[in-house]
Amino acid sequence: MTTPDNAADTSAEAPGTTTPAATGVAARDWDTASADPQYRAAVVDLLGALAYGELAAFERLAEDAKLAPTLSDKAELAKMASAEFHHFERLRDRLSGIGEEPTGAMEPFVAAYDGFHKQTAPSDWLEGLVKAYVGDSIASDFYREVAARLDEDTRGLVLGVLDDTGHASFAVEKVRGAIDADPRVGGRLALWARRLMGEALSQSQRVVADRDALSTMLVGGVAAGFDLAEVGRMFSRITEAHTKRMAALGLAA
Amino acid sequence: MTTPDNAADTSAEAPGTTTPAATGVAARDWDTASADPQYRAAVVDLLGALAYGELAAFERLAEDAKLAPTLSDKAELAKMASAEFHHFERLRDRLSGIGEEPTGAMEPFVAAYDGFHKQTAPSDWLEGLVKAYVGDSIASDFYREVAARLDEDTRGLVLGVLDDTGHASFAVEKVRGAIDADPRVGGRLALWARRLMGEALSQSQRVVADRDALSTMLVGGVAAGFDLAEVGRMFSRITEAHTKRMAALGLAA
Repeated sequence: MTTPDNAADTSAEAPGTTTPAATGVAARDWDTASADPQYRAAVVDLLGALAYGELAAFERLAEDAKLAPTLSDKAELAKMASAEFHHFERLRDRLSGIGEEPTGAMEPFVAAYDGFHKQTAPSDWLEGLVKAYVGDSIASDFYREVAARLDEDTRGLVLGVLDDTGHASFAVEKVRGAIDADPRVGGRLALWARRLMGEALSQSQRVVADRDALSTMLVGGVAAGFDLAEVGRMFSRITEAHTKRMAALGLAA
Repeated sequence: MTTPDNAADTSAEAPGTTTPAATGVAARDWDTASADPQYRAAVVDLLGALAYGELAAFERLAEDAKLAPTLSDKAELAKMASAEFHHFERLRDRLSGIGEEPTGAMEPFVAAYDGFHKQTAPSDWLEGLVKAYVGDSIASDFYREVAARLDEDTRGLVLGVLDDTGHASFAVEKVRGAIDADPRVGGRLALWARRLMGEALSQSQRVVADRDALSTMLVGGVAAGFDLAEVGRMFSRITEAHTKRMAALGLAA
């Protein structure tokens, strides 16, 4: 992410990533780490979830590009959509590379993402921009949280995709400009941003409840099940970061 | 294009491109050629028309990706959409590079493309595939027709974008498969393909009537106006190529 509000984080590790990985998997490569079937299942889930997330984001950003007031705004959103598609390609190719059928890996996450997007179809251009920014930022926070829990090969891929995000900074400028021009817009968009975050959390929690291996890995690989409280703390860190970004954008709660 | 039905054309010049350029512009570079204000205006029109065409194609392919029956079909259409976006970027950057405001250059063509897409929204996945294939092929034929009439720099750009098309060959396979499985599908899709071509011609003729400089260049740069009959012949060559491709696809008229 190179958006103004968290640019300072990019050289240091984000708060969540300093937790040492309980399984010590971070020091291993994929071949070694994937000998553990639970770890392998978790990574396949993770790559499937990220891949479908990128494909769904592509589709929604392209759809939201229709709301653009000018051709150059439309081109900016199309550019973000295209970047998401290339992330999808990298994640899908990685799934194929480790011998997994990408479609099968993505299927379990289709309902959650489609549910999220269905519940959060923007009704105008500014809502679309806030959604693009919030989505990009939450994805970035999540990628960071999860990176420290991964073997070095998978971590390289996840951080590589992360490096290439941050296309949403133009959204920040446009939203700030709109709020400056009419401060009442800020109230409406603040409600919208809370709704986006609420819907994202609700869909994520559904995924956590459904996907044991993934959830276990997310909290550091406690072997016999996972600590729901730790998942809660992760969500809580992501929510806090979101709240700070929204405040910086002039969308205080 | 690398689609089966015209693969043989790719090393030789397409029929329309063997006409010698009446202005001799093909031997000049952009700096020399653009000293003629009418030529410059024609190229700005052309790049604007192609750029908006690519952006509109991006948007429609992304929209049509929603009709995909499987995730991998969706990804194929998303890939085509993303490729169109990158064509758009090259054409837009070229407009900026020659000191033109891309939005201004694209605006005159928005109505024609939007009109085309509005009149030809596919009602199902197969119609979407046929549209992707027909659109890609017509664009390719048109790029070839026009390339011979351009200065060497602009020609390089246009042929470069052309080289990178042909993502529609997967559409050919899918459509053939569907017709084999149920021959009645062929009749419906043949009607659809004719409607696509009819709508494309009708929108193109509107553009030709509106944009004098562009039309003059398209017919070889007759200085004092242009020969409508020659434009007609160009459309006729493109239509014939389309008819042959449709027949090869099992969509005879």
